[in-house]
Amino acid sequence: KTYSVAVIPGDGIGPEVIRESLKVLKTVEEIHGGIRFTYDTFDWNCAYYLKHGRMMPENGLEILKDYDVILFGAVGDPSVPDHISVWELILPIRREFQQYVNLRPIKLLRGLESHLRYKNHEDLDFIVVRENTEGEYSSMGGRMHSNTPHEMAVQNNVITRFGSERILHYAYQLAEQRSKQRLTVATKSNAINHTMTFWDEIVKEVGADYPHIDTELYHIDALAAYFILKPETFDVVVGGNLFGDILTDLGAAMVGGLGLAPSGNINPEKNYPSMFEAIHGSAPDIAGKGIANPIAQIWSVSLMMDHLGHPDLGKLILDGIEEVVAEGEVRTPDLGGNAGTESMGNAIVSKIKEL
Amino acid sequence: KTYSVAVIPGDGIGPEVIRESLKVLKTVEEIHGGIRFTYDTFDWNCAYYLKHGRMMPENGLEILKDYDVILFGAVGDPSVPDHISVWELILPIRREFQQYVNLRPIKLLRGLESHLRYKNHEDLDFIVVRENTEGEYSSMGGRMHSNTPHEMAVQNNVITRFGSERILHYAYQLAEQRSKQRLTVATKSNAINHTMTFWDEIVKEVGADYPHIDTELYHIDALAAYFILKPETFDVVVGGNLFGDILTDLGAAMVGGLGLAPSGNINPEKNYPSMFEAIHGSAPDIAGKGIANPIAQIWSVSLMMDHLGHPDLGKLILDGIEEVVAEGEVRTPDLGGNAGTESMGNAIVSKIKEL
Ligand SMILES: CC(C)[C@H](C(=O)O)[C@@H](O)C(=O)O
Ligand SMILES: CC(C)[C@H](C(=O)O)[C@@H](O)C(=O)O
Repeated sequence: KTYSVAVIPGDGIGPEVIRESLKVLKTVEEIHGGIRFTYDTFDWNCAYYLKHGRMMPENGLEILKDYDVILFGAVGDPSVPDHISVWELILPIRREFQQYVNLRPIKLLRGLESHLRYKNHEDLDFIVVRENTEGEYSSMGGRMHSNTPHEMAVQNNVITRFGSERILHYAYQLAEQRSKQRLTVATKSNAINHTMTFWDEIVKEVGADYPHIDTELYHIDALAAYFILKPETFDVVVGGNLFGDILTDLGAAMVGGLGLAPSGNINPEKNYPSMFEAIHGSAPDIAGKGIANPIAQIWSVSLMMDHLGHPDLGKLILDGIEEVVAEGEVRTPDLGGNAGTESMGNAIVSKIKEL
Repeated sequence: KTYSVAVIPGDGIGPEVIRESLKVLKTVEEIHGGIRFTYDTFDWNCAYYLKHGRMMPENGLEILKDYDVILFGAVGDPSVPDHISVWELILPIRREFQQYVNLRPIKLLRGLESHLRYKNHEDLDFIVVRENTEGEYSSMGGRMHSNTPHEMAVQNNVITRFGSERILHYAYQLAEQRSKQRLTVATKSNAINHTMTFWDEIVKEVGADYPHIDTELYHIDALAAYFILKPETFDVVVGGNLFGDILTDLGAAMVGGLGLAPSGNINPEKNYPSMFEAIHGSAPDIAGKGIANPIAQIWSVSLMMDHLGHPDLGKLILDGIEEVVAEGEVRTPDLGGNAGTESMGNAIVSKIKEL
């Protein structure tokens, strides 16, 4: 089977970590004779914007539409305002391709317990399902009374029944496959009275289809605290676009930093390509130094293999990552070592071949 | 000087922790001959709602308006939906009394380092300034296409120049009084394109008045991660209503849990009473057991003394709290001990008298 991959390395450390991910994909081909990847690489990033006045060609989405998957590095550079680089590249891909599930494991790797002062790596192993197309990221809104003391801006937080039901069904079905049979739902209905009470109602309705799953609703403020105070109680956590965004960066910090946090932007129906990217940004401060941790991006490739229907290969990649981290000989600076991006990638590739 | 205090114990553990706070105020009177407090207690809570169909009398705000300060316990009970109890009591007080600053110290108490696995308690000592009247907590919005597959809800996030300028000036002026001369600003302008880019612009404008203060803007997701990864870099952190809410519960978890987190809802101009309350809720699960940690509420009284112009007494109360925690003999269950609410309160009172 051949899979077509659109590769968008993007800005900053994006190309550096993508390079290591491609080595891993090559290794997968070597190991599993029946799988082939074909690649096309697109140079859509801030440099492209400065040249062409847009982050991708007008027909960019049209170009991407028929790929099986998209491998995305990171976007953002000080030379272009974030709200442009992001709104013209990553957000349209997520939305137009109905990648309504943003899947983000929060999992402490074996070997990092003492570095992070946890007792057991099993205590931190859950997954966040983030709604990826609506909510606080709606572009609806605007400004008025500009340049007067009465100036104001409004942004609409939009929640639909349709959008909420589909993400909740996905989350419940994921919870069914896991051990704790529990779904934790982020809300803030005590203060955000229109959208969040609506969300709570839909949670109740959808939850009725999954009576064997234990549903717990927490306000986002308390939930952020519970991430720290009782991470071992979580299994699947579902939240809207903004809450999912915040919780997963927080979770990333808990498991050792943004260098370790993968994500999949999933279109479950496979009508469109899904996209796999590290949660971290382009990190202009360390770009070009060859010290970025490639694990987040390689782990995203593992999620990609799961999505393509090869969970065995997804697991193999993750095992390779975990084994290298546990051995502790090759670690990038963010994990207390002094290995570079390339050595880390090579170590993972060798380990995967050994396993 | 006599100060009038409106006391609203509220629900759950609210009355339990308020009782200990009042002991501390009595101690303050004993120590400082020139200060007197007069109290009126209001039974506005969920039980009141079940009897009268509202959380406070129609003229509740009118009644409160002339007090010097409000001491608030906690609100919320499973018998009344949160969005009612909160929207009819705490949120109107914050808004109508222009308590536009919600001041929330994140400070690790001496003696809790090892409990929380930090090296130095000085590493965690900053203050969050939360905008308290607008933003995501606007009640503007509604629903349409109810009970159809097209049902949707919208909530307007409303940011005004006026509301943003006043909170930013407050935050900068607070930063000027502290050691690091640094202000960290929460934003999310890469994704929330109307309100947050507006906010960033105002940050830039207001910041120009404080060129000696080092301003750093972080997106809320990264900022939540940095709370964990580099808490020692923060001094004053300012954010909108929702971001401030989330960051302070997170901060509370970092310093030992919600039992330790105080807050002041401040009207800096003193046109209206300010309100002091623990960040925690009514905690129905432990209510009535006499085991709630009263520190958050007593610490809020310390903030109240600061606000009333007696920082020496505010410091005395906080020193009393910290000394008891550092000695470690009397600790509530949330801090690993088995003292009750009352013993903890009494220990703090005795310590204050000793100091
Ligand atoms: C009770 C709730 C509305 C409130 C808030 O979100 O402001 C609480 O969480 C707080 O932080 O004071
Ligand atoms: C770049 C930014 C818009 C994005 C988001 O907020 O979704 C990022 O933080 C992420 O989590 O993927």
